Amino acid sequence: MLSPARIRTISTRFISKSLIKSTLFKHNTAFKSVTVPFIINRQQQQNYATKNVSYTVDKFPGYVRNDHFKKLTEQDVEYFKTIVGANSLIYNNPDDLFPFNTDWMHKFRGQSQLVLKPKTTQQVSDILKYCNEQKLAVVPQGGNTGLVGGSVPVFDEIVLSLQGMNKIRGFDSVSGILTADAGCVLEVLDNWLGEKGYMMPLDLGAKGSCHIGGNIATNAGGLRLLRYGSLHGTVLGLEVVLPDGTILDNMSTLRKDNTGYDIKQLFIGSEGTIGVITGISILTPHRSKAVNVALLGLNSFDDVQKAFKQSRIELSEILSAFEFWDSNALQMFKKHATPKSVMEKEYPFYVLIETSGSNKDHDDEKLTNYLENMMVEGVAEDGVVAQDETQIRSLWSLREGFTEALGKEPAVYKYDISMPVDRLYACVEDMRQHLREGGVFGQPDSPVTDVVAYGHVGDGNLHLNIAASCLESRVSQLIEPYLFEWVANHQGSISAEHGLGVAKNEFLGYSKSPVMIQLMKTIKNMLDPNGIMNPYKYLPSH
Amino acid sequence: MLSPARIRTISTRFISKSLIKSTLFKHNTAFKSVTVPFIINRQQQQNYATKNVSYTVDKFPGYVRNDHFKKLTEQDVEYFKTIVGANSLIYNNPDDLFPFNTDWMHKFRGQSQLVLKPKTTQQVSDILKYCNEQKLAVVPQGGNTGLVGGSVPVFDEIVLSLQGMNKIRGFDSVSGILTADAGCVLEVLDNWLGEKGYMMPLDLGAKGSCHIGGNIATNAGGLRLLRYGSLHGTVLGLEVVLPDGTILDNMSTLRKDNTGYDIKQLFIGSEGTIGVITGISILTPHRSKAVNVALLGLNSFDDVQKAFKQSRIELSEILSAFEFWDSNALQMFKKHATPKSVMEKEYPFYVLIETSGSNKDHDDEKLTNYLENMMVEGVAEDGVVAQDETQIRSLWSLREGFTEALGKEPAVYKYDISMPVDRLYACVEDMRQHLREGGVFGQPDSPVTDVVAYGHVGDGNLHLNIAASCLESRVSQLIEPYLFEWVANHQGSISAEHGLGVAKNEFLGYSKSPVMIQLMKTIKNMLDPNGIMNPYKYLPSH
Repeated sequence: MLSPARIRTISTRFISKSLIKSTLFKHNTAFKSVTVPFIINRQQQQNYATKNVSYTVDKFPGYVRNDHFKKLTEQDVEYFKTIVGANSLIYNNPDDLFPFNTDWMHKFRGQSQLVLKPKTTQQVSDILKYCNEQKLAVVPQGGNTGLVGGSVPVFDEIVLSLQGMNKIRGFDSVSGILTADAGCVLEVLDNWLGEKGYMMPLDLGAKGSCHIGGNIATNAGGLRLLRYGSLHGTVLGLEVVLPDGTILDNMSTLRKDNTGYDIKQLFIGSEGTIGVITGISILTPHRSKAVNVALLGLNSFDDVQKAFKQSRIELSEILSAFEFWDSNALQMFKKHATPKSVMEKEYPFYVLIETSGSNKDHDDEKLTNYLENMMVEGVAEDGVVAQDETQIRSLWSLREGFTEALGKEPAVYKYDISMPVDRLYACVEDMRQHLREGGVFGQPDSPVTDVVAYGHVGDGNLHLNIAASCLESRVSQLIEPYLFEWVANHQGSISAEHGLGVAKNEFLGYSKSPVMIQLMKTIKNMLDPNGIMNPYKYLPSH
Repeated sequence: MLSPARIRTISTRFISKSLIKSTLFKHNTAFKSVTVPFIINRQQQQNYATKNVSYTVDKFPGYVRNDHFKKLTEQDVEYFKTIVGANSLIYNNPDDLFPFNTDWMHKFRGQSQLVLKPKTTQQVSDILKYCNEQKLAVVPQGGNTGLVGGSVPVFDEIVLSLQGMNKIRGFDSVSGILTADAGCVLEVLDNWLGEKGYMMPLDLGAKGSCHIGGNIATNAGGLRLLRYGSLHGTVLGLEVVLPDGTILDNMSTLRKDNTGYDIKQLFIGSEGTIGVITGISILTPHRSKAVNVALLGLNSFDDVQKAFKQSRIELSEILSAFEFWDSNALQMFKKHATPKSVMEKEYPFYVLIETSGSNKDHDDEKLTNYLENMMVEGVAEDGVVAQDETQIRSLWSLREGFTEALGKEPAVYKYDISMPVDRLYACVEDMRQHLREGGVFGQPDSPVTDVVAYGHVGDGNLHLNIAASCLESRVSQLIEPYLFEWVANHQGSISAEHGLGVAKNEFLGYSKSPVMIQLMKTIKNMLDPNGIMNPYKYLPSH
């Protein structure tokens, strides 16, 4: 869920192991500042784009338009104008339609002729009621920052953009419960809450573009899940428009409400296939007074695990992130940014640790003790601690820069998988070996140029990226379904946080049993009997 | 969800306001010990019972047995013997059947002739497959500690007890993920995890009897929800047997898994109406090294709110409980226990605050600063801090003793409601006034003897108890639906954590819209078309 929406500078400080020991990470050394030139924002990216993006149906053959769906007519467009007004739709204008038809990675592209931008829940209801009656297929779209093609059309589905619904509805400063329209941008909400001493319980690289409704529809995980838990726990209520236009008001603002099936849960992670989320109610935590970020260099993934296990004991209630990457990720970053080392020496693994608490002195003491233990016990080889907010942002921008850096490669096979923590890196090493044996990696002319790994250790969530000089069927055939089988054999998930979209739906059987998939289809048919919502995605076609 | 299963002693220490200020809650004064004689355990209670408990259908007229359900035959019993064995069922033995037909409060009583105690998921599947084919109605039963009659039959439904399924399946000490049979007792799991440095993310008075499967089926809230969140966030996977015997394997042990609708969520809080939970996977937190408990005396509910709001800022990440009760609750406790004061003086309100953290010194400092601020600012009038584990238990046993004390009254109307925190006590005061005006409270011969309030401030969850000399229709007609209307008018829930069962199902419309209720019925019909699972409950009959 990372997008290139944030421009950041990366700065860091080199501390040798001995220096760290002697200073105990005290606040007496300045970071060196290094500007990263390569990150561009999304608007620029779209301007730079040639718009020569292949259509999804050409790139991934096998899709057939469902003739059950009506093709859009001028009469339909006129009717929609009566609902949203002529200024709140885009019709037959290829330039304006382009960003709604295409994902930000330019991997997927649909052929919609119509974008609707309702401003009220009632308008969403009126639109869906008509689409359901007319059998017009619909793709709900939030910030369009997804990575699996879930928010753009495959064929000519109407795009229902929520960007016009962006009002904050209310906030209870005693309980910290926020209600808002689904189209509110995550960062806008987070900043708004910040002024009241609160924060959103989730954070991700795309926060400047993504909508809270899209976050919930895709069950976004991100960087704060380790501390504040999943959206299944923090979302207290939803307002949803069902495919037939029925408005489902489940906008509870209660932490506890045991009155019937918790229906809103079905829509968390449903990727727009059974309804459109129009309003949300979410429990927000107090913004921490003290935030610390440390970066460690380590020699092995075993050491990464040791550092994680000990952090859960020593940092416990103040631990808010535990991220890792390997040296390949760092090399990829350096390839596309100014080639500066993060530490004096380089290490096979890096760990970014964030703490968030209510007392700076207490947190400093806990973190210092922990880091000292990690150094003394030989778990970590080197480390730096950010000294101020700028340096905290700098360390985070390194972690968040991998997606952008990989985006500069000619081609990337991206995977987002989860599994028991102790298997995480074996998966990476096994994939490298498998690609070498398959003859596509490790030689000067190999199509695969690198296998890069980073992820959320605390969540058992690995972002595995296979960079290549071009997309080639012999490479993809070596990766899939091999990787999915590997994940299934290790009780993992083929999609930890990115969702299914068009990229993963046919592989669902690697993570869910036939009984589960059948039940999912039954639920889909129950709520969307005409199948108009986000077709060709999410569930397997066969 | 409190049961009288735990025998505890209550001891406390009297500290005057000036003494607290001078000692700053330091560890230099011993508690005085007071033994509470009235708490008896469940086995004793059952032995003492006369078994002259009225049948639900006599006490609450209007139930009609659904003739669609088959009546149990000898052939059915013989068939069940082939599944579970003759030793794992109870048939036609009134004494042995009694505790399965009756809830622990002796408020509800069914007329089942058969209890089945399967030992495996396959046996549960075989039982339900047969019951579904034969249209035999079934009540799943865990520890039978519920408060709304959800786990006992109304008529002759077969009781499917999970007490034979009590194996721990596995534990991952890196991630803290536990897998277990649904029939494991909550306290057994908590103790088992304690040896590994972990704990269950939920705690409630009935922990010594209740099953984790029942906790999840009723979405139990309890005492740790403020800190560790709801079961919708901490339950990672479930194994469920559907009404037709299909085994749904959703036993994920992953923190992140975005592959399809999160179907397990439907079963969390479904009260056995759409399937039987047989296995669970749950994320467990590290057991805190340091636990502190403080008790404050306050003059008003406004002060309770001030103390709560400030605790979220100052205690923040270490705050693990914030409970309140009024002086009426204390009087009720004293009426049935040895009449000792908790503090030197009495106050209109009390607050119990628990902190849990990884560093005793840090936590002590945070708590001391907070308590000092509360005293200096005049929010709290008096306070005590527990000095050791025994005193911590003592303070908790006071909070947990109200349910038991109320159980000694001739009659109690019990309500478990949630609403925005600032409305919590207005609800209590309004009810007192309403009952006074109705002529049933406030005079020497009034049937209502007291209106007692306590609850979880952090969750906006009020336990409202109306004690009476006897059950009387003019009293119940004054309370219901008046209270439910009041709650609905204040955006509250008529059942915060106890669930619906037979006690609340007909009032669901006060908390859920007709569209929501219709969708619930559609889901029920989809999964249980013959309606054999826990009939006459949960959803409204009309």
